[in-house]
Amino acid sequence: MNVFIAGAATTKFGELWATSPRNLAQEAVGNALKDAAIDIRRVQALFVGNMLSGMLGGQEHLGAFFAEELHLAAAAFKIEGACASGGLALHNAVNSVLSGQYDTVVALGVEKMTDHKPEDVAMALMGAGSEEERASGVTFPGLYALLAQVHMQTFGTTREDLAAVAVKNHYHASLNPNAQFHTTLTIDQVMKSPRIADPLRLLDCSPISDGAAALIVTRDKRYVTKNSIKIMASYVATDTLGLSQRSSLTELKATKTAAKNAYEQADIEASDVDVAEVHDCFTIAEILAMEDLGFFPKGKAAAAIAHGITTLGTSSHLIVNPSGGLKGCGHPVGATGIKQVVELVEQLRGGAGARQVKGAKIGLAHNVGGSGATAVVHILKK
Amino acid sequence: MNVFIAGAATTKFGELWATSPRNLAQEAVGNALKDAAIDIRRVQALFVGNMLSGMLGGQEHLGAFFAEELHLAAAAFKIEGACASGGLALHNAVNSVLSGQYDTVVALGVEKMTDHKPEDVAMALMGAGSEEERASGVTFPGLYALLAQVHMQTFGTTREDLAAVAVKNHYHASLNPNAQFHTTLTIDQVMKSPRIADPLRLLDCSPISDGAAALIVTRDKRYVTKNSIKIMASYVATDTLGLSQRSSLTELKATKTAAKNAYEQADIEASDVDVAEVHDCFTIAEILAMEDLGFFPKGKAAAAIAHGITTLGTSSHLIVNPSGGLKGCGHPVGATGIKQVVELVEQLRGGAGARQVKGAKIGLAHNVGGSGATAVVHILKK
Repeated sequence: MNVFIAGAATTKFGELWATSPRNLAQEAVGNALKDAAIDIRRVQALFVGNMLSGMLGGQEHLGAFFAEELHLAAAAFKIEGACASGGLALHNAVNSVLSGQYDTVVALGVEKMTDHKPEDVAMALMGAGSEEERASGVTFPGLYALLAQVHMQTFGTTREDLAAVAVKNHYHASLNPNAQFHTTLTIDQVMKSPRIADPLRLLDCSPISDGAAALIVTRDKRYVTKNSIKIMASYVATDTLGLSQRSSLTELKATKTAAKNAYEQADIEASDVDVAEVHDCFTIAEILAMEDLGFFPKGKAAAAIAHGITTLGTSSHLIVNPSGGLKGCGHPVGATGIKQVVELVEQLRGGAGARQVKGAKIGLAHNVGGSGATAVVHILKK
Repeated sequence: MNVFIAGAATTKFGELWATSPRNLAQEAVGNALKDAAIDIRRVQALFVGNMLSGMLGGQEHLGAFFAEELHLAAAAFKIEGACASGGLALHNAVNSVLSGQYDTVVALGVEKMTDHKPEDVAMALMGAGSEEERASGVTFPGLYALLAQVHMQTFGTTREDLAAVAVKNHYHASLNPNAQFHTTLTIDQVMKSPRIADPLRLLDCSPISDGAAALIVTRDKRYVTKNSIKIMASYVATDTLGLSQRSSLTELKATKTAAKNAYEQADIEASDVDVAEVHDCFTIAEILAMEDLGFFPKGKAAAAIAHGITTLGTSSHLIVNPSGGLKGCGHPVGATGIKQVVELVEQLRGGAGARQVKGAKIGLAHNVGGSGATAVVHILKK
């Protein structure tokens, strides 16, 4: 693919009471343009990844909304696919550049969640699930708890294994100045945190967050420099919206399909990936991702993660979620898929500071919508 | 552009109490696939245009939702841009095929509005406007009434001129079996209908509607037949979300920009267009569109329309809104931009029956979001 990321930036993620979606978008896009040294007038289209602004804030038409705010005289779109909205926005941005219709575009992920009551946010998030699930009163922690129960029963995965994902990702987040959390955790702390949906505890869950992230996607040779990162693959797959229709609950089939095709597109193997940002909305989700992305055989990821072999500072080949992941860095839903790729860009440039994955050359981003109905995989190379 | 529409279908538009979004999508996509004689397993991606399902129904993640419903093992996206959601979905579908990432995709527009209280629908629709507009309590009839007032003061456009648009489009709708309305109107009836926002009367406004429409977009030569219609141009432009920030209220700048670039892309002039489906959400909107699309000089369209020169059965070169437009055929917001192109496909194939525009060779579709913050222009050729 002849498409590059020429600029990348993320805001701090967290409970950003003093800021607005407008400010967040301006900061992320402004810094991404600065990073790319591209004049805003060269931007021909804007792809906004966002899930909740209509349901929670009554504001739709976010393409035009942010184009105006950013003073972009450009085509503009909102792309929505629940928590995969950011990844889907990037996929469409990449395709739009490959199409020849545009040379340089912006993919912006943005979400402001903390202005609303947590119960309203939980209900709005269930817009990602099936009618049957909403009618049953289940929320996403309950759905992922079901997946965790099945994984524990089938493969002997333990509650300690789940906790180890949170411990790793909080450690990584403690090294990331833009992360929501800078406190490290112990297995014991995770295990003793309040029960949310058995076996998931509070510290098995990603938080409610605010944040924005932006990428400058281009095929214009003038903007492709030694700092640019090549997009090797961009693949999207879907599965049933609800868990009850799936043939297996020990895997997310959409992740497997997207990954298999992305590896083929990039002409690499899973084992070639040096650094991955994966969708750990709950600790069990990272374990599933490690297996479904082909990094570990089914049933083997949990122990491997608990062993620390995907943790920064180890001798392992593959480091996972150096940003802190959704768990430690935060999960402003529409921004997450873009932030993952911003982190990969920093890693592949060698500019990730204290959380640098040494010698990282190939990076993979994995963004999931709902309980696995949408999966997006991007592969990047220095 | 090497992209074709191989299949097209629309459901009936109207107050479809007995049907669901699922049924509407199945009918539209099923018939479009049948029209194209393409097996559903050949579809690689689904682009869903919809605005209101999250705000009114709590269901987001519509890409995966409809992919599951339609048994499409495909990538899937929801594209939102208010009343231009359908046009934007098609634009992204076209680009995704041009990109080489996909060969054959479906663009689906769908909206179910009549299940909700009209006041809730009016409020949700204001999600397309600016915060300032929402805070002021204005709704879309009020915003377009402002545009009408300015047009009347500046160019001497009359209330009879506005009414003539409704009369023409209801006449066209009376010839369209899929239209919401089959009753013809007189100028007097429009003028005496209840006042909504001066100078707009009830019969100057498009209705609240349910409906779906679908297009099969392909570059796969196996599916390009003598029935296929070539996409010559696909262009999107944006303007400020709110009216108060615009430098002129006698035009929609986004329409002008999109049209100018689309003509250039298709290498044609406005005068080459034989049939146009334009965004007449209110009667004044069709007058603005006629001028901004370059069919008439500024200030001259109203009298021309009132003269009947864009009405079916005249000797005119250009026939406008043969489907009945948003006014007569109905306006299920996310479906409108797709339905416009379905109508053009039928016209360019010569299969539009009683409402056939004789010898139509070049068609233009014009879809607007909000009060003109987004404009989408597609140009098609037999």
